[in-house]
Amino acid sequence: MHRTKIRVAEDALDANETIARANRDDFDRSGVRVVNLMSAPGAGKTSVLEAALRGLEGVRPGVLEGDVAGSLDADRIASLHVPVTQINTDQGFGGECHLDANMVRSAIPSLDLDGIDLLVIENVGNLVCPAEFRVGEDVRAMITSVTEGEDKPLKYPLMFRACEMVVINKIDLLPHLDFDVDRLVANIDTVNPRAETMLVSARTGEGVDAFRDWLAGVPARAETVA
Amino acid sequence: MHRTKIRVAEDALDANETIARANRDDFDRSGVRVVNLMSAPGAGKTSVLEAALRGLEGVRPGVLEGDVAGSLDADRIASLHVPVTQINTDQGFGGECHLDANMVRSAIPSLDLDGIDLLVIENVGNLVCPAEFRVGEDVRAMITSVTEGEDKPLKYPLMFRACEMVVINKIDLLPHLDFDVDRLVANIDTVNPRAETMLVSARTGEGVDAFRDWLAGVPARAETVA
Repeated sequence: MHRTKIRVAEDALDANETIARANRDDFDRSGVRVVNLMSAPGAGKTSVLEAALRGLEGVRPGVLEGDVAGSLDADRIASLHVPVTQINTDQGFGGECHLDANMVRSAIPSLDLDGIDLLVIENVGNLVCPAEFRVGEDVRAMITSVTEGEDKPLKYPLMFRACEMVVINKIDLLPHLDFDVDRLVANIDTVNPRAETMLVSARTGEGVDAFRDWLAGVPARAETVA
Repeated sequence: MHRTKIRVAEDALDANETIARANRDDFDRSGVRVVNLMSAPGAGKTSVLEAALRGLEGVRPGVLEGDVAGSLDADRIASLHVPVTQINTDQGFGGECHLDANMVRSAIPSLDLDGIDLLVIENVGNLVCPAEFRVGEDVRAMITSVTEGEDKPLKYPLMFRACEMVVINKIDLLPHLDFDVDRLVANIDTVNPRAETMLVSARTGEGVDAFRDWLAGVPARAETVA
């Protein structure tokens, strides 16, 4: 007797996957590589991005800013003369805590895909749900800051597992903290042995060159990840 | 002609309210006052709570720990000989990003409500969804840390609006940051003029006495807020 295996999937996530693939097709058609950048609130997504975009050469960047409310981060990015589109998620009750593929899809018409090579999608600050929703990205990166404690990979494993790159930010504060970088890296390794890590201070600029190079290299790298 | 006004509510939130009221009734019956403690990941909920619970007198505390995964925080609280119950939210797909009233309800049988006067519910680290789900608490408090930036009240207004108390943590790091406390307080005031604020360092102990007094005073204060 043959049995047909039925895949029972969460409807919402299934629909999200379908739309994410449509987004990805649009990005691919224009040769735009896409990074989904995630972190907890205040870890420094915008600051690291600002520092890396300054001096980025050979790649034309664009940014999609996801926030519950306001356009503070988009204003910061725009002042660098980088094309930026704001998505506010506060249309849902109280505000959606993540970007999903459909929100990104709604922003595509306002993006000049032929005028950019690299799109950085700055997600809503949150270590849980953004990891569950693909938006059409090639790679996923997250920022964790040394002020957040070494235990975060163990408490939010899905986020750390979802990312190809974990940027460890605010290392300028290490002399003033009881923080063990090796322990954080070991905890990241426990939940995601394949994650690349990078030490950065958006404030002093330390390590920013390496992250900028990584961003510039996303096109090539995405081919192998995809 | 008479028209009947139908309140159209989100079903899920409506059910949550019903269960939250049932929780509240149980807590009231045992004379237990309840604080819902929220923050971004790594803002220092557990550290502030540990510091405040040490030396808390005249009030018998209990703690409910909400985490996506693991029991790291519960272990820390238990080492203070405070009764603690762990709720892990990773039963949902990828992990729920907040506690809801039903999760708290499921933990009530394991709480000795007659043995405590004050229950602190440490929510999942997240500045969006926890603010949308009442769990049966009397008061809501949040912790924001000075390493997160002054703009957080403007970017996550619902959370700051939902709380009666905003504890500003990690003030020992102020000399090493470009951070304007007055600007943060002004931004809190913009979204929630009635919020009380408090400056604290869980690391040095500065300001912890005031937060401990606030916790001890929740029973009295809850009567006026409720």
